[in-house]
Amino acid sequence: MEEKEKDLIFPAKRLEDFITNALTTLGLPKVDAQTCAARMVEADLRGTDTHGIFRLPSYCQCIRAGKLNLHPRVHAVRENASTALIDGDNGMGHVVMTAATQLAIRKASESGIAWVGVFNNNHAGAAAVYSTMPLAYDMICIYMAASLGQTMPPWGGVERILGTSPISVAIPAGEEPPIAWDIATTVSSSGKIELAAQKGESIPVGWMVDRKGQPLTDPRRANEGFLLPMGGYKGYGLNLVIGMLAGILNGASFGRRVRDLEKDSAIPRRSGHMVFAMRVDNFMPVGEFKRDMDRGIREIRNSERMEGVDRIWLPGEMEFCRVQEHQKKGIPIAPAVVQGLRKLAAELSLTDRLDWKEGCSKQRNSPERLSS
Amino acid sequence: MEEKEKDLIFPAKRLEDFITNALTTLGLPKVDAQTCAARMVEADLRGTDTHGIFRLPSYCQCIRAGKLNLHPRVHAVRENASTALIDGDNGMGHVVMTAATQLAIRKASESGIAWVGVFNNNHAGAAAVYSTMPLAYDMICIYMAASLGQTMPPWGGVERILGTSPISVAIPAGEEPPIAWDIATTVSSSGKIELAAQKGESIPVGWMVDRKGQPLTDPRRANEGFLLPMGGYKGYGLNLVIGMLAGILNGASFGRRVRDLEKDSAIPRRSGHMVFAMRVDNFMPVGEFKRDMDRGIREIRNSERMEGVDRIWLPGEMEFCRVQEHQKKGIPIAPAVVQGLRKLAAELSLTDRLDWKEGCSKQRNSPERLSS
Repeated sequence: MEEKEKDLIFPAKRLEDFITNALTTLGLPKVDAQTCAARMVEADLRGTDTHGIFRLPSYCQCIRAGKLNLHPRVHAVRENASTALIDGDNGMGHVVMTAATQLAIRKASESGIAWVGVFNNNHAGAAAVYSTMPLAYDMICIYMAASLGQTMPPWGGVERILGTSPISVAIPAGEEPPIAWDIATTVSSSGKIELAAQKGESIPVGWMVDRKGQPLTDPRRANEGFLLPMGGYKGYGLNLVIGMLAGILNGASFGRRVRDLEKDSAIPRRSGHMVFAMRVDNFMPVGEFKRDMDRGIREIRNSERMEGVDRIWLPGEMEFCRVQEHQKKGIPIAPAVVQGLRKLAAELSLTDRLDWKEGCSKQRNSPERLSS
Repeated sequence: MEEKEKDLIFPAKRLEDFITNALTTLGLPKVDAQTCAARMVEADLRGTDTHGIFRLPSYCQCIRAGKLNLHPRVHAVRENASTALIDGDNGMGHVVMTAATQLAIRKASESGIAWVGVFNNNHAGAAAVYSTMPLAYDMICIYMAASLGQTMPPWGGVERILGTSPISVAIPAGEEPPIAWDIATTVSSSGKIELAAQKGESIPVGWMVDRKGQPLTDPRRANEGFLLPMGGYKGYGLNLVIGMLAGILNGASFGRRVRDLEKDSAIPRRSGHMVFAMRVDNFMPVGEFKRDMDRGIREIRNSERMEGVDRIWLPGEMEFCRVQEHQKKGIPIAPAVVQGLRKLAAELSLTDRLDWKEGCSKQRNSPERLSS
């Protein structure tokens, strides 16, 4: 029990190399494989372990099933100074969304503001990995995905025709960590359910219900029920507008038209995303804004706490701390995930089998309360 | 008991005239008074009765206390093709936000996309009243307010330094009612709490807690506790980013700097708002988009329902139905609210005392489950 349940620790670089090797072995151009590896490991660094290397085996499965275009022509089909509609050409989502975010940054640099929509895309990993990219340019960013994999029914319904519709908003700060709010609009993400299933853990009451509205706590029974929206009907509404703005507006999949990747390998996912970037200095000098952000952040952090609460966290602050910790101490990966990666390494005949001899394994002890 | 608890029914036009008269009597230019009246009655038509004529007495109180500028110079202090920062000059929020939304529409008409931020503003009423304005121009709209009146502590805290931070997103449809998602990011709005207090009703468990985290159900004790965010820490994050994008980014009030209007009459509210408008045809032909929206909406409405659920509603659909009903049958106003308006009419020596002789009073029977 004890050894099996402990996470294994890997340096970020080693995980990046592993991912790059796996993807190039499957035919992805090296530069694209590196982009994917960077985005995935950034998610792991942030502690968003449901969207990092954990996903590699399923991405590889898609590639081997021929569902992804390894040499996509990612290009704008409509464009003006501040908006663009990008055809992802069924490429790896990380490659497509990195390009789309870079385009949004470029357009916002020139015209102050940009909204880039994407269709013909695939799963792109963690939202905050993209929403935080414009921060370096003193820009605010909003990112939404019309996630596929129907996990949630409409409010009052039992048909799983809605996705988890993640959204992230990133806002620059000065000396303080930037704000990086990143949530699934369901109470839990499907990644967390999958991870719990892999780990053999149960999920809390309130995350899922079965078709009769009864709590479902065994993640292995996930397909017998559905995720609940955060905040009841309010979260259902947020879920819908994200699906419409990132999906319908881009001509991407929405609702029942969504095909679950696992169900039909012949049909590309046609996933939709959007990324919005806007320069802070449209509204005020950057220095002044950052000073005001720092003041607001500190005011919140230092406000009076409830009994038993050690610290008040800002959105993205916990992830910011994890990045620093993981960069120093390495990234903890659950044994079941490592097992899956080793199996993948064997299948692809990679030289690195992620054997683990580099020190002691360590129980993860991340603060869960505010993590997304 | 019986007669007292029944709502009184007024035609929209009569309420608009009443508001216009009250505000012009207090010195507001007629055109501005009419704008305020239109926005307030639009809220009542939608059934958002916490943001309609219910608020008139408190607005009038502010005006009489000299807290509002009756002749504001609403003007842009920063501006480019797609963005503007508007100084509301401490005018009535309805006047300022009507102008700001019109500016956003004009800019988006020309350049495809627009973000207009506002500072030095006041309470502007219901978010959806503004977010639905760009729909007629085949535009998507996002509206946020850095609401004042600190009602919520940060997640894990007990200091009420955050507002309810409302957000609304409106998306055009074809034959179907447009999407008009409009929520407070707290489980309940403060307006609902005030209305319950006025009506002598208790509020449900889960809306508010006291400083020890215990449920607070007596709305008259509201100032001893605080509103909870929708969806726990996720809604806390949404609340914060709205406060930052609509408040800090515009140099408007945020956090502890917020002064509650009721507390100090000498200090203007410096409230912040933002409105974003974007043309649908940046991304696809309008007709095609509306057809896809209709299809998505119908798919959701017609999906399989849980036992006991009569209908699946889309965000804003219930309000759309209420507008039609209220335009035909009149707007139901709670007796306590009418009482307050009559008192106001007497104080201002208005000829219309809202005496009510025009038919039978009627118990309201609006569907509450999905209303915001």
